[in-house]
Amino acid sequence: MAAIRIRDSIFRRRVSSSRPRGRRPGSSDTRDAILAAARERFARHGYDRTRIRDVAEDAGVDAALVHYFFKSKDGLFVAAMQLPFRPADVIAPVLAEGLDGLGERIVRRLLSVWDEPANRAALLAIVQGASAHPGAAEALREFLRREMVGRIAGVIEAEGPELRANLVASQIIGLIAARYIAQLQPLAGLSADELAPVVGATLQRYLEGDLRARPGA
Amino acid sequence: MAAIRIRDSIFRRRVSSSRPRGRRPGSSDTRDAILAAARERFARHGYDRTRIRDVAEDAGVDAALVHYFFKSKDGLFVAAMQLPFRPADVIAPVLAEGLDGLGERIVRRLLSVWDEPANRAALLAIVQGASAHPGAAEALREFLRREMVGRIAGVIEAEGPELRANLVASQIIGLIAARYIAQLQPLAGLSADELAPVVGATLQRYLEGDLRARPGA
Repeated sequence: MAAIRIRDSIFRRRVSSSRPRGRRPGSSDTRDAILAAARERFARHGYDRTRIRDVAEDAGVDAALVHYFFKSKDGLFVAAMQLPFRPADVIAPVLAEGLDGLGERIVRRLLSVWDEPANRAALLAIVQGASAHPGAAEALREFLRREMVGRIAGVIEAEGPELRANLVASQIIGLIAARYIAQLQPLAGLSADELAPVVGATLQRYLEGDLRARPGA
Repeated sequence: MAAIRIRDSIFRRRVSSSRPRGRRPGSSDTRDAILAAARERFARHGYDRTRIRDVAEDAGVDAALVHYFFKSKDGLFVAAMQLPFRPADVIAPVLAEGLDGLGERIVRRLLSVWDEPANRAALLAIVQGASAHPGAAEALREFLRREMVGRIAGVIEAEGPELRANLVASQIIGLIAARYIAQLQPLAGLSADELAPVVGATLQRYLEGDLRARPGA
C-alpha cells in the first residue's frame, strides 16, 4: 500500500500540471494509474460515494477508458483490491435459481470458492490487508454490503429482507472464520456434502422461515 | 509487541546470568516480567503447550509466584493478552444452567459483554493486534478453542459434540463480526431482546437438534 501511495502521489502531480493526454488504452501504465487512483478514492471516500468519473479525473484519463478497462464500478473495485473474482459473478447465478434450496446452494458455492487454495490465499491476504488499513476495510465492507448482502436481500420475499440478509451474512462470515481462519476441527475437515445441509438449513430459515419460532429441535 | 520483546530480552539476559532472586511478590516489575515472559511463550509455543512453570523459569521467578498473581494458566493468558475478562467467568455460569434455552442465553451473554463500549474497544483491539502477530493469533485461537469451544462441547449430550460446538462458534463469531465489525444494518441496531431468540434458535439447533433435518421453514 505504501508503494501504491507513492506511485499515486507522483502521478497526481503529473496530472495536476496537465490535462488528460489521451494515453493509449492498451498501456499497462495507464491501467495501473487508474487502479492507484481507484484505491486511493475507495479508501478515502468509501465504495458507495466513489464514482467512475472521479477516479478517471484523478488518474487524468477519460471516464470511457475506465469503463473500457473495468466495465463497471464493481469491476474496478475488484481489480483495485485484487479480489480473485467479482462477487456478483459468484452470487448472481446462485440467487437466480430461486429461494428453494438457496441456503444450501449458498454454502456449496462459498465452499467451492474458499476450498480452492489460490482463492483462499488471495481472500485471506485481502482480509489481512484490510485489517491494517481502516479506509480500505471500510470500502470493502461497503462493497460487500452492496454486492453481497444487498443482492441477497433483493431475492427475499418474506418480511424484513434486510435483517434476514444480515443474518445470512453473519452465518456465512462465521463459517468462513471458523473453517478457514480458526480452522476449528472437525468442522474444517468436513466435505461440502457434509457441511452444506447442516449450515444451509440455518441460512434457509433466515431466508424464509419464521424467525420468531423455534426450529424443530 | 516490539517494546515487550525488547524488555523481555533484557530481562532474559539478567535471568540467565543469575538464579531466581526471590523478588517481592508485590513488585509490579516482577508482575510485568512474568507477563512479558508469558506473551513471548504463548506466541512462540501456543497456549496448549505453554506451562506455568516454563513461564516462571523464563521470568526467573518461582512458579508459586505466577500462581499467586494469576491463579491459573488461563488467568495468566487473560492478563498477558489484556483480555477484559476471563472467558471462563463469562461462559461457565451460562453453561451451568443446562441445555434448555442455552442458545438464547449464549446470545444474551455475548451481547451483554460486547454491547459494553469498554469491553468492545478492548476486544476489537485484541482482534486487530492478533491479525498483525501470527504467533499471538494462533495462541488466541488455541485459547478460545479450549476455553470457549471446548467448554461448550463439554455440555452437549447429542452425538458429535465437537462439530456442534464448532457450529455454535461459527454463528457466534459471525454475529460478532456482522454486528460489531461490519456493523450491518438493521442487525447492528437490534436490541438483545429482539436478536437473542432469532440467533438463539440457530444455536439451539446446533446444540441439540437433528442436524440433518430441515428446521421448520
